Amino acid sequence: MKSIIIASTSTIHGSGYLEYLLDELSQHFKSADEILFIPYARPGGISHDEYTEKASEAFKSIGKTVKGIHEFENPEKALENAQGIFVGGGNTFVLVNQLYKNKVLLPIKKAIEKGTPYLGTSAGSNICGLTMNTTNDMPIVYPPSFKTLGLVPFNINPHYLDPIEGNTHMGETRETRIKEFHAYNSQPVIGLREGSWIEVKGNQLTLKGALDARIFEYDKQPYEIGTDSELNFLK
Amino acid sequence: MKSIIIASTSTIHGSGYLEYLLDELSQHFKSADEILFIPYARPGGISHDEYTEKASEAFKSIGKTVKGIHEFENPEKALENAQGIFVGGGNTFVLVNQLYKNKVLLPIKKAIEKGTPYLGTSAGSNICGLTMNTTNDMPIVYPPSFKTLGLVPFNINPHYLDPIEGNTHMGETRETRIKEFHAYNSQPVIGLREGSWIEVKGNQLTLKGALDARIFEYDKQPYEIGTDSELNFLK
Repeated sequence: MKSIIIASTSTIHGSGYLEYLLDELSQHFKSADEILFIPYARPGGISHDEYTEKASEAFKSIGKTVKGIHEFENPEKALENAQGIFVGGGNTFVLVNQLYKNKVLLPIKKAIEKGTPYLGTSAGSNICGLTMNTTNDMPIVYPPSFKTLGLVPFNINPHYLDPIEGNTHMGETRETRIKEFHAYNSQPVIGLREGSWIEVKGNQLTLKGALDARIFEYDKQPYEIGTDSELNFLK
Repeated sequence: MKSIIIASTSTIHGSGYLEYLLDELSQHFKSADEILFIPYARPGGISHDEYTEKASEAFKSIGKTVKGIHEFENPEKALENAQGIFVGGGNTFVLVNQLYKNKVLLPIKKAIEKGTPYLGTSAGSNICGLTMNTTNDMPIVYPPSFKTLGLVPFNINPHYLDPIEGNTHMGETRETRIKEFHAYNSQPVIGLREGSWIEVKGNQLTLKGALDARIFEYDKQPYEIGTDSELNFLK
């Protein structure tokens, strides 16, 4: 059974890395002793080793070890054998570029489909959608395609940000950007606020965490949906 | 002689479209009665006609007419004959995609090099840099390349935004994003705040407007540069 957590962020304000999710992760990865970590998104340009170390420290507190995919000679094999997979955040363009270059998109999808539990945060959540067209990241590298895993039949906008009242900055709001996305694309987009995640259990999709999420459907007014709502209607 | 204005934004808070720049534009386009407008970036997904009408209204107040490039059967010819060129803002991915599809990047560059005055705002400024890798926009379409006009030997970040003190949002700051850019690219980036522009006169590059700009050079601490500074050292 597919078992996926698609989280808006790894870290909420005033709390440690993955801290707000640890109870959830303890359950999610209960069958896994070791997590396979994909550090390709390189937040702040840090090395794969440094990033893996960071993930490792967080998982240690729930009794799991972590190994980076870059430590394996054969990443496809590593995914096949993984007990659990975590794709961390950073830059989505960098992440997607590396996933294509290392030919691991299909192996990740296969592992998830056979039931390997998956956690994505931020960029690692973006790639769960149909495409990465609704990332907030800067296009610092040019990936071979914007197509991603399509584990859910819509797009994700992580770190969703409401318009700031009284803001004098003239750059587009997040809502405007997603509206522009719908001038060229018709799939729904879910704006996941920091602290929210989507839980996928088999064919059951549920919004989790403390906050509401904002739904953008093609040719409709955006609207809010409460936590613990089913998301199966979105397609 | 090359004559280019690369503006952070079309509009500053509390003022009309292009209003803060009109005196400058009156001088910049003094030899032109008609401006060729490129509406490809489609802010908010509006039509080419609607966008051209918006530009038209602003230019009317300084006695210029505006015609959209989409009104011409042969865009290349239109650029060759243009008295002045304006590329408006919106989504940089949409703009660059259309510039490639309509094969007008080289014709724009040629027109500028023979002295046709050019104005870019926001996305229209992004494309003046070496690449569009430092846009803030959402990648809502997949362009054939991120390479742009290279009218200046660095990259532009329009609508540059300082970190907001006390902000609890965990998404990357603009500075972090540009630092990540430099993990993969070595050209300088200029963060242009809203109300700033770069003036290019032949080989002379100058920062204009009321505000300082932030300079990001590879492997250096970012720093501020005052208005009216020369930018020729940046390469």
